[in-house]
Amino acid sequence: MKPEVAEFLDAHRVGALATTADDGRPRQSIVYYARAGDHVLVSTLTDRAKARDVRRTGRASLCVVGAEPPFPSATVSGPAKILTEGIGPASAAVVARVTGTDEAPEPQTDEALAAVGRVILRIEVTQARATYL
Amino acid sequence: MKPEVAEFLDAHRVGALATTADDGRPRQSIVYYARAGDHVLVSTLTDRAKARDVRRTGRASLCVVGAEPPFPSATVSGPAKILTEGIGPASAAVVARVTGTDEAPEPQTDEALAAVGRVILRIEVTQARATYL
Repeated sequence: MKPEVAEFLDAHRVGALATTADDGRPRQSIVYYARAGDHVLVSTLTDRAKARDVRRTGRASLCVVGAEPPFPSATVSGPAKILTEGIGPASAAVVARVTGTDEAPEPQTDEALAAVGRVILRIEVTQARATYL
Repeated sequence: MKPEVAEFLDAHRVGALATTADDGRPRQSIVYYARAGDHVLVSTLTDRAKARDVRRTGRASLCVVGAEPPFPSATVSGPAKILTEGIGPASAAVVARVTGTDEAPEPQTDEALAAVGRVILRIEVTQARATYL
């Protein structure tokens, strides 16, 4: 990922996540995300459509758009996975983005996250397209 | 489409368009759009990947996100088509959104638009999901 794409992702907090539904239709939802190197992390629930789509297809895309004209944007995509192990720090990193704080909360255990159905949807960014960055 | 979704779409100008690529992957790009009743209109080029995807699959989705927390959003989707006839007014309506003016420019003829490869990608909104509207 180019530095300007990484910086843009870090400077924003929400984007449109796209997956492919089981009937082939594009499915989108708005998500908070965090970046970790060349990965994009989203916290979701194990039975959400987006999680089922990623388990089935192994792919996802995220599109982030700036607020002001000319509307800079970054669209990143690649192989995606649903993770359930060692996800405390990633989940805490996403919570910090939701609350808009620099410091992530104390990570929860995998067991505590599993008890409430929380998983991490992780995209390995292998394609990135930017406009006006 | 509920009035609050229509109003939100009208109050914004760009969004993440999602289609399904020929290998099943989700494909996204940022687009300007205009709304006409229960349709969402995007002006694109006939040989763009998004146009090819819609011709092949007949589906598209658009996700629009507000700029400030709590990040209101509308995600609309449904059957989609690539139109080449009678598209002057729709194309002019999208141009007006790009330039940010209330008044659309004089519509071009289908022939003039075809000469530069311009088509209209039209989504018939049959599903709409909103957050914080």
